[in-house]
Amino acid sequence: MTLTEQMTQLAQCAKAASRRLAQLSTQDKNACLLAMASALEQNADPILAANRGDLDAGTEAGLSPAMLDRLRLDGKRIAAMAKGLREVAALPDPVGRVLDRRVRPNGLELLKVSTPLGVIVIIYESRPNVTADAAGLCFKSGNAVILRGGKEAMASNQLVARLMVKAGQATSPRFPEHSIQAVPTPDREAIPALLSLTQYVDLCMPRGGEELIRAVAECSKVPVIKHYKGVCHVFVDAEADLTVAEAIVMNAKCQRPAVCNAMETLLVDRQIAASFLPRIVSRLAAHAVALHVDAETEAVLKSELRTPNSELRRATDQDYFTEYNDYILNIRVVEGVRQAIDHVNHYGSAHSDAIVTKSEPTARRFLNEVDSAAVYWNASTRFTDGGEFGMGAEIGISTDKVGARGPVGLEELTSYKWLGIGNGQLRT
Amino acid sequence: MTLTEQMTQLAQCAKAASRRLAQLSTQDKNACLLAMASALEQNADPILAANRGDLDAGTEAGLSPAMLDRLRLDGKRIAAMAKGLREVAALPDPVGRVLDRRVRPNGLELLKVSTPLGVIVIIYESRPNVTADAAGLCFKSGNAVILRGGKEAMASNQLVARLMVKAGQATSPRFPEHSIQAVPTPDREAIPALLSLTQYVDLCMPRGGEELIRAVAECSKVPVIKHYKGVCHVFVDAEADLTVAEAIVMNAKCQRPAVCNAMETLLVDRQIAASFLPRIVSRLAAHAVALHVDAETEAVLKSELRTPNSELRRATDQDYFTEYNDYILNIRVVEGVRQAIDHVNHYGSAHSDAIVTKSEPTARRFLNEVDSAAVYWNASTRFTDGGEFGMGAEIGISTDKVGARGPVGLEELTSYKWLGIGNGQLRT
Repeated sequence: MTLTEQMTQLAQCAKAASRRLAQLSTQDKNACLLAMASALEQNADPILAANRGDLDAGTEAGLSPAMLDRLRLDGKRIAAMAKGLREVAALPDPVGRVLDRRVRPNGLELLKVSTPLGVIVIIYESRPNVTADAAGLCFKSGNAVILRGGKEAMASNQLVARLMVKAGQATSPRFPEHSIQAVPTPDREAIPALLSLTQYVDLCMPRGGEELIRAVAECSKVPVIKHYKGVCHVFVDAEADLTVAEAIVMNAKCQRPAVCNAMETLLVDRQIAASFLPRIVSRLAAHAVALHVDAETEAVLKSELRTPNSELRRATDQDYFTEYNDYILNIRVVEGVRQAIDHVNHYGSAHSDAIVTKSEPTARRFLNEVDSAAVYWNASTRFTDGGEFGMGAEIGISTDKVGARGPVGLEELTSYKWLGIGNGQLRT
Repeated sequence: MTLTEQMTQLAQCAKAASRRLAQLSTQDKNACLLAMASALEQNADPILAANRGDLDAGTEAGLSPAMLDRLRLDGKRIAAMAKGLREVAALPDPVGRVLDRRVRPNGLELLKVSTPLGVIVIIYESRPNVTADAAGLCFKSGNAVILRGGKEAMASNQLVARLMVKAGQATSPRFPEHSIQAVPTPDREAIPALLSLTQYVDLCMPRGGEELIRAVAECSKVPVIKHYKGVCHVFVDAEADLTVAEAIVMNAKCQRPAVCNAMETLLVDRQIAASFLPRIVSRLAAHAVALHVDAETEAVLKSELRTPNSELRRATDQDYFTEYNDYILNIRVVEGVRQAIDHVNHYGSAHSDAIVTKSEPTARRFLNEVDSAAVYWNASTRFTDGGEFGMGAEIGISTDKVGARGPVGLEELTSYKWLGIGNGQLRT
């Protein structure tokens, strides 16, 4: 069987499974998820053994310590996978919600009802815990999933997927075997092969670094929901409460710098630059945040005769486009909210951006005109997250505009259909 | 300037316009739409002259009479374009709707608010009236539009777009000039060039024949909302009211056979085949509907010793996949609702399908399991239409699952963003 034939068969089986899965009751789905959680816990030893094999091969192949760490499962990570599945079981079923209802003058009742999407391909890097998380969310939302993790994690991923399927089968006779499949080949060509099958695959969600996501988006013929990167901003307006601003800036930059909703660029209104910049820079220095600053910021800091502990250099245009994921921050002085909005829309990644101000008109302008998935007023950019949004769990964040935008939880993994209930209505 | 540079400039201008257009008030947008309607009426003579040029060139180029008819504008069609714009002005603004609101335990208020998508490319064939219709819907939903009609209609399309822009500019100083642009070149390569500009273009909607739509979907790097074809079904269940069934079948097939929501295949439950088939075939014969039937239907019709006036031949597998858009119908006898659902999901185009039955459980099963954009119970498939759904106008029908599904009206031309309103919330 060629790779194309193999991927076609996989996708065909997923499509057939998705039709049956769409009809599975909420109770059945939840019982399966709970059984899957227990199966992972009870099979911790074989999972760790499979993972040991992946780790040994990875060590031999010269993976970096950071990569090996992401690849590594342990008792705690297996427990977290099980806990995640139980949490998904406890969430409301996103399928079958009535999103709209209208009765037409001819008596035809129209219902817009949420449905599963169908078949979802998840492409991710080496973390095997994503296998359980993604499979759980797709399953609960009635979607068949095809998982394609990093090739280094293949043994771990295959076993986790197989255990989940076995647990599902043992729990409900209606559980479709092919509702959770892990691509059984490390061949990179499997990805374009799968993502050309528009007749079977409804959505692809890549998770990982920008390079992976660009490669997936480039080759895919099926819709892709994604974010390339998180270049997030905090704008401190002239009318900001500077104590609030300081706390938000520190939280957005330093609470967890390696994540996509952390701030990369601080914009400060010229009117408060002299008062705000020295104090925030001294706070940032305590975390050894390296600063890439514009000429005005540099001038202010010099005139204050402060020598920050932090490394400081002039920001380049490219810096403003860069997601550092690290203790590095761009700082730029801007001429009011207009220039702040223009900066964010030009350099940002349409992910998460915040304004700090006491002025409602200024805040409204920023909220309206910043074209990002999430825009905050007097709150940290770090809130863009399924859990923080009350969605329960999330499979990722989208900066796209067609389909889900922002955190992608269970509801965002659904589509809808229109049901027309009549009593013989004809079009005239 | 190369074609790529030209398209990049067009798309960049559209993106810049879309940011300003997103901030235009509902009143301003409506005033512009009304002015555009009047401008088309007042400039009927120059429009007809431009159209005359397109028609002359088309005649010379040997266009078919049907194509020339689609290309032709007259007073009535110009009046219809103006009327359409006035109707769009009267519809509610789809931007700024609060789709969800939640207050988190930390006091952070989250609002999910509808926004324009940004820049939409509309690709269509030779009807110049689509120019005004599409531009009006995109404009009202706050989207900048790039129109790419058939090259035969270029002079007509350019003039209609230019008149609309001039009317907008004369009405509101905030009207962005590049919110409505018609691609000024007949070069076919303009399409892939435009549809590779993912940084500027947010959505493409192709309208036309399956070949055009497949070509667009194949080359596009931006999201495409579309339907390839409408292979719609009516299933007459064993428990159908046969009088209702007869009326729905006739309406779905014959009221307007050339449209995408007309029925192409009639499925009849075996239990009522002997009673229903002869009577419906005689009705269809009155409209000279050619029949492509399975062996069982043929046997029933023969045993009844009827010789329908209609042409009749055995259906091929390919027939069941075919959109005839004509007085042609496939008829197949099926073993209950299970086989009907399987037939629809296998051969259908996920557009519009109907069941006729008095049994609620059977209807519910069909409504749940048929995986189409619109599924009807005791109503004609012909209702899948923005106007019939109460959306006002529509720009097309989608059989996709990511983004809009079913009729695409104003609301379906929007995305959303999350606004987070806080008072200093930090992530812990």
